[in-house]
Amino acid sequence: MSNDPKAIIFDVFGTVVDWRSGVAKVCSDFFARKSIEFPADRFADMWRGEYQPSMTPIRDGHRGYTALDTLHLENLVNALQKAGVAERFSAAELAELNHAWEQLPPWPDSVRGLARLKKRHLIAPCSNGSIALMSRLAKFGNLPWDAVLGAEIARQYKPHPDVYLRSAEAFGVTPAQTMMVAAHNDDLAAARKVGLMTAFIARPKEHGPAQTSDLCPTSGWDYKADSIEELAEMLHC
Amino acid sequence: MSNDPKAIIFDVFGTVVDWRSGVAKVCSDFFARKSIEFPADRFADMWRGEYQPSMTPIRDGHRGYTALDTLHLENLVNALQKAGVAERFSAAELAELNHAWEQLPPWPDSVRGLARLKKRHLIAPCSNGSIALMSRLAKFGNLPWDAVLGAEIARQYKPHPDVYLRSAEAFGVTPAQTMMVAAHNDDLAAARKVGLMTAFIARPKEHGPAQTSDLCPTSGWDYKADSIEELAEMLHC
Repeated sequence: MSNDPKAIIFDVFGTVVDWRSGVAKVCSDFFARKSIEFPADRFADMWRGEYQPSMTPIRDGHRGYTALDTLHLENLVNALQKAGVAERFSAAELAELNHAWEQLPPWPDSVRGLARLKKRHLIAPCSNGSIALMSRLAKFGNLPWDAVLGAEIARQYKPHPDVYLRSAEAFGVTPAQTMMVAAHNDDLAAARKVGLMTAFIARPKEHGPAQTSDLCPTSGWDYKADSIEELAEMLHC
Repeated sequence: MSNDPKAIIFDVFGTVVDWRSGVAKVCSDFFARKSIEFPADRFADMWRGEYQPSMTPIRDGHRGYTALDTLHLENLVNALQKAGVAERFSAAELAELNHAWEQLPPWPDSVRGLARLKKRHLIAPCSNGSIALMSRLAKFGNLPWDAVLGAEIARQYKPHPDVYLRSAEAFGVTPAQTMMVAAHNDDLAAARKVGLMTAFIARPKEHGPAQTSDLCPTSGWDYKADSIEELAEMLHC
């Protein structure tokens, strides 16, 4: 690639951090405290399963922008109901458990890769997570962002074009000077559609050992790598 | 103080960084290149002199939110006109010189103080600077923010209440859980009015050796200190 991006923005859940292990760990501890026997991995998948549908009314304009923290809480209640244990949680416990999303371990290469990219590029999350969630998650995992961009500053959810465009604009760069990094082909497709460069990071264990989606790039993205460190290497950082 | 803030937000120009020395340094180099003889310190004061008036129409609702980068550029042209040298600058040179505001040295205690406060608190700029400006300034000076808040996310300028309130909200905390830190009494007064805790940092050289304003706190702020490190000490960080 002859064009070097000025800013690099990242999907976070799955691309930078391992949400499934992180959520399962917090749920496992919480369930143990309450003597609830339910597989924590499976519960993490059920909770995450509510994620995309919960944003649809906002993307479609039927509901005003509502921060992901609120959607996560609503989704938690739905998932606990499906697991048949919702009535055992107080409101305070639900709020506490909802912080699980602020305690997700970075993939082993993430912090080193971001630190290398940061030397020569502006870097930020372009996630559907709120600023509150993303800043606490960064603190938890030592993610060295230059700023927190994404859904909240656009008041819209990916893959809506505004989220990518507003994030580039906030860094004072054009879409063509911006690269979107994600482990999800649909995220990259939406970013490319509005003029961003794209990089695919393979995260074949995001959904656990039996993952079937996003195992490899489904289009000719500008870069593809097996880790953020490998991407940093490709960009000569 | 019995109440420990969860989030600490900072004025930046003057409180965290030495804008006057930084702008004068860049202007001095630039003027030398163009063989312009004009005292750089005085020019920095003239450029900064346009700052408050340029935000008034936006605060008053007569002009839509316009990022500070654009106002700085307009103010630069005004200041160069007053200095009688505006016609000697091309548009590209104006744009280049305007980046002076991204190259301001932190005060000697700022980086260490922020790093200490960051261990136990969420920290962010609550400046009138844009996200683009603040993130580049943080990169220049290694300011370890957790997020970039302030004017751009509120699309309004301090001392408008929205800037303080929206910044607290973005961190997911209440105004009472948030502390505003500034070297300017009027900034703290506006923050206190909407319920934030306040800390005054004395910066008696912000305006150079002959400074007459903000030499000391003019009200009983929650904390007063001579440096950000001293504030960290007071907060047991």
